[in-house]
Amino acid sequence: MLIVDSLTDQPSSLLGAIDSPSDLRGLDLAQMEQLARELRETIIATVAETGGHLAPSLGVVELTLALHYVFDTPRDRLIWDVGHQAYAHKLITGRRDKFQTLRRYKGISGFPKRSESEYDTVETGHSSTSVSHGLGMAAAKAIHGDKSKVVAVIGDGSMTAGMAFEGLNHAGDLGRDLVVVLNDNEMSISENVGALSSFLSRKMTGKMVRRLRDHIEERLMALSSVGENILSVLRKSEESIKGFFTPGMLFEALKFKYVGPIPGHELGDLITTLENVRDHNHGPVLVHVITTKGKGYTPAETRPGDYHGIGTFDVATGQPRKNPNAPVSYTKVFGDTLCRLARQDQRLVAITAAMPGGTGMLPFAAEFPDRFFDVGIAEQHAVSFAAGLALEGMRPVFAVYSSFMQRAMDQLIHDVCLPNLPVTIALDRSGVVGDDGPTHHGVFDLSFLRFIPNLTIMSPKDENELQHMLFTALHHQGPVVIRYPRGSGEGVPLDDSFNRLEIGKAELLREGKDLLLLPVGNRVFAALAAAQQLAASGIDAAVINPRFIRPLDSELIATWAAKTGRVITIEDNSILGGFGSGVLQLLNERGLHPPVTILGHPDHFVEHGPQAVLWANAGIDADGIVRAAQTLLN
Amino acid sequence: MLIVDSLTDQPSSLLGAIDSPSDLRGLDLAQMEQLARELRETIIATVAETGGHLAPSLGVVELTLALHYVFDTPRDRLIWDVGHQAYAHKLITGRRDKFQTLRRYKGISGFPKRSESEYDTVETGHSSTSVSHGLGMAAAKAIHGDKSKVVAVIGDGSMTAGMAFEGLNHAGDLGRDLVVVLNDNEMSISENVGALSSFLSRKMTGKMVRRLRDHIEERLMALSSVGENILSVLRKSEESIKGFFTPGMLFEALKFKYVGPIPGHELGDLITTLENVRDHNHGPVLVHVITTKGKGYTPAETRPGDYHGIGTFDVATGQPRKNPNAPVSYTKVFGDTLCRLARQDQRLVAITAAMPGGTGMLPFAAEFPDRFFDVGIAEQHAVSFAAGLALEGMRPVFAVYSSFMQRAMDQLIHDVCLPNLPVTIALDRSGVVGDDGPTHHGVFDLSFLRFIPNLTIMSPKDENELQHMLFTALHHQGPVVIRYPRGSGEGVPLDDSFNRLEIGKAELLREGKDLLLLPVGNRVFAALAAAQQLAASGIDAAVINPRFIRPLDSELIATWAAKTGRVITIEDNSILGGFGSGVLQLLNERGLHPPVTILGHPDHFVEHGPQAVLWANAGIDADGIVRAAQTLLN
Repeated sequence: MLIVDSLTDQPSSLLGAIDSPSDLRGLDLAQMEQLARELRETIIATVAETGGHLAPSLGVVELTLALHYVFDTPRDRLIWDVGHQAYAHKLITGRRDKFQTLRRYKGISGFPKRSESEYDTVETGHSSTSVSHGLGMAAAKAIHGDKSKVVAVIGDGSMTAGMAFEGLNHAGDLGRDLVVVLNDNEMSISENVGALSSFLSRKMTGKMVRRLRDHIEERLMALSSVGENILSVLRKSEESIKGFFTPGMLFEALKFKYVGPIPGHELGDLITTLENVRDHNHGPVLVHVITTKGKGYTPAETRPGDYHGIGTFDVATGQPRKNPNAPVSYTKVFGDTLCRLARQDQRLVAITAAMPGGTGMLPFAAEFPDRFFDVGIAEQHAVSFAAGLALEGMRPVFAVYSSFMQRAMDQLIHDVCLPNLPVTIALDRSGVVGDDGPTHHGVFDLSFLRFIPNLTIMSPKDENELQHMLFTALHHQGPVVIRYPRGSGEGVPLDDSFNRLEIGKAELLREGKDLLLLPVGNRVFAALAAAQQLAASGIDAAVINPRFIRPLDSELIATWAAKTGRVITIEDNSILGGFGSGVLQLLNERGLHPPVTILGHPDHFVEHGPQAVLWANAGIDADGIVRAAQTLLN
Repeated sequence: MLIVDSLTDQPSSLLGAIDSPSDLRGLDLAQMEQLARELRETIIATVAETGGHLAPSLGVVELTLALHYVFDTPRDRLIWDVGHQAYAHKLITGRRDKFQTLRRYKGISGFPKRSESEYDTVETGHSSTSVSHGLGMAAAKAIHGDKSKVVAVIGDGSMTAGMAFEGLNHAGDLGRDLVVVLNDNEMSISENVGALSSFLSRKMTGKMVRRLRDHIEERLMALSSVGENILSVLRKSEESIKGFFTPGMLFEALKFKYVGPIPGHELGDLITTLENVRDHNHGPVLVHVITTKGKGYTPAETRPGDYHGIGTFDVATGQPRKNPNAPVSYTKVFGDTLCRLARQDQRLVAITAAMPGGTGMLPFAAEFPDRFFDVGIAEQHAVSFAAGLALEGMRPVFAVYSSFMQRAMDQLIHDVCLPNLPVTIALDRSGVVGDDGPTHHGVFDLSFLRFIPNLTIMSPKDENELQHMLFTALHHQGPVVIRYPRGSGEGVPLDDSFNRLEIGKAELLREGKDLLLLPVGNRVFAALAAAQQLAASGIDAAVINPRFIRPLDSELIATWAAKTGRVITIEDNSILGGFGSGVLQLLNERGLHPPVTILGHPDHFVEHGPQAVLWANAGIDADGIVRAAQTLLN
């Protein structure tokens, strides 16, 4: 079976001559189409080796070419919302020769990055910022009297986030020249969510047409001069009235001019439409483009969710190259535990913000469809919706990536913790996530959560403890965050029954007299390994698994800090305001002043690269802990 | 001039017999109307003495009565978005006798509060959460098979926030029974912003009708059987077609049933409509109610912005009772400085999220309308819009209340600090704000900002330093937050010219040998007063104004910590993860281990009350600092 479009009968390597978008502008349509095929082949072959956001990038190859062809980039500003669809953009803007380093340590980023290219206008990674960015640029250009253009490309999934609506609403009000390209693949990361999406898909049209026909008939009947003849004409015209009700009405309501929908893989249509928009439109305009996610690679077209973000895979079969010996992931243990607990407890309901797969909740969604809520890319709403559920006696669990939870801190403070409601946040992807880089690392959560009154924060040392923590959270009368990392667990066996942990009680894992190691979550195993290495050189380290970042087990921690006289805290989080900071403060409050080494990520954004490399860079792996211990003892 | 509706010819005190909403249900329409008048009189007389959100509460008196009359509260859930309009609700739900304690220390809250009444279904204070809360409740009720109702009342201003859109979009998708009452006063806190508001105000209707007529004409002309006669009928029917295009189309697009608009001060209409909605509607329904903000009190009707939230005032004249000797506020100095700087620097642009008055930017808006942007209640968009402006060479200043900035932390991290853009956040209302209470206190900002890489955080000791900090921020090549409190400045003279402060340099205000006081912002004057008191009892305190919370002046702080051997930090912020936490960490890093007392708000939500009382409670006034010093020295 041939699953990649073949290039065998084509002279290859038009791409080899594209050093910048200006090289596009001399190509004819057939050449552009060939270039699209070459781009797809390069993207598929590369992502097979590096992993990455395959399906989104395949979906916008023609759109990328058309935009760079029509607009005078980089003078005209091109913004990719989220940025996970920018691989073709990278390939034609001078990064062809570095493309095989995609998402690799010290290689090019999987997202637009201003330091890489003047064609990357903003840093991105989180969704739904492009309209705001673009409007700011357009407003500045208007003040400068600069006539160049601003184009923001945003997916239909990203449109469900409130922030996109805020941007559209302001753009319509302000009236500046701004082109918003809606990249509508009718399928964002998962199945698209919300009333908006059904509106975009024209399901609303029939209903609106019928209502209008009834309305006009009623009014016309009241006019004496109208006979059955006219009404029958009107009825015949129903089909033609349909054309009035476009998916664009919502955008027109927000004062955008609406253009489309246009087929997103027809380069000729795309170019003509975009040229018209460029030359004739003023004020905000929305260009609705219909694309197919994963276009040109059958496995990705068939299962775009699985190929949204993917690890390495075999091009011929589309099969992921997974390590068969890798332990089960934290995410999977979370999802399985959620199902087991839901079977026992009718109150348990689960929420995702457009990440049912990524957060491991597909089994729950299948088994408990009535208790599962995918709210779209809407973390703010998700948290306050959970509060509403909790107020009526449910036990909601919102599973969300740490870096996306940054969007809902206010709702957690205001709607969950102030009223002290039993909402559980399952904070996946805490700590460094690896190849996705700084926008996706979850290295701030302990800092932005630790000060919130009434909140309990737990972090499991392994996947077995994760199960018990989820069980404990669901029996706790207040808000809980459980923080766990991306990727494989520690390979420990899973207990059959659940234990309820005592809130605020830490676990002494190893006694020792020379220093105390306090590692958070999956840093526990690194600390135990370090303690063994240290023992070999005659240093006797105690190790406590705090389990709870708040409340801290002041008693146990203070006791062993006093016994050993030296403390090292280890966390996959910023060193500012996190766990170590809390330990320092608790010791100071108790009048203890041992030297404390706080290990974690220093005060800068963490680059992309394998988790193990990033842990080593921060000195929070076993070797780093050993070095810190030796320094502290000297 | 009579500015309050008179009650002289009416038997008063129907209100005296209303202990709960069930007492309403025996009244006739005339009695309800009289009760509305009594409620208004009570609200006006009380707020004149206590201050509070006058205009919003006056606007919904009839709506409040109608809702409690029609719905079976508290079994049916009634949610007030923001909650600043809930005074009539409080008066008829058992809090009549406590109403004169409104917003007073230990008195009833200015917002709904679950601990006050079972009729207060959620805690509120921040806008646009009600649809999410309501949908969560409705979803839970559907799971329980509970047929009782959920009603969320939301203002048109709150509708501009993305979170409301997220909630509506999910509600339309989910299809649960939910009544959303749109309280449309065509004027939220300030002039309403955004394309949505013009849509609601029917300005769109004419345009849509013309477009439809043209569309149908075009299509009919193509049919051979259609003559001029039909077309002329069609043209005549234009008026009648108008009725099709309601302000509700946007909500219908989101799969809500739309009812309205209905006049919000006609009790009979309100009751009939709400009864119909209660008895006949399933799924999500939006009831559009037109109200007048400040209704029944002429000054508030005329200038609803000024009477949105107001201090004490004279009922007869409507004049605020201001202390003529109070120093100029930080907010005013900020606004004036912004204008002075904008005259010198064309790049300066200013942004507010629907708070031009509250943040002191009305003079700027008047003088520089083309460089002023009110984005609506949309803090997320505001920050990323600022990033877009900065990317094109502007110097945006976003002035926002500290507690509302909680909504845009992710955008600050991701869109401003990661790309290291020169955006200035003027963080007003930092620290406790007084009577508005826990939802409005800005006591977390140092904790949720201090860990963000690339960010500079300043806090001025007085209003004069505020000017210099704003000037400094606008010359700094990176993001800056300037944190200043609500209310009067310290009464110091304002320098005529601006000084550029050296980033990260603190100011030694007083030498001393016994201990070091490190007060943030307006705590500096309290610390200086404490130092004077301490000197009288022979204790010699050094005082450093850190000016910068990040980067900290490690050198100066460490030097004086070492010299004195004891440190007290003082901040109007949580003690967790804020300034004191940073000082402790910096001393530990330098191998210094003096005892450090961290003064600030302990780990719970701070109640409402006068700022001075709340500062005293936290021990961050002069007396508290003296006590802490004496404890530390003993």
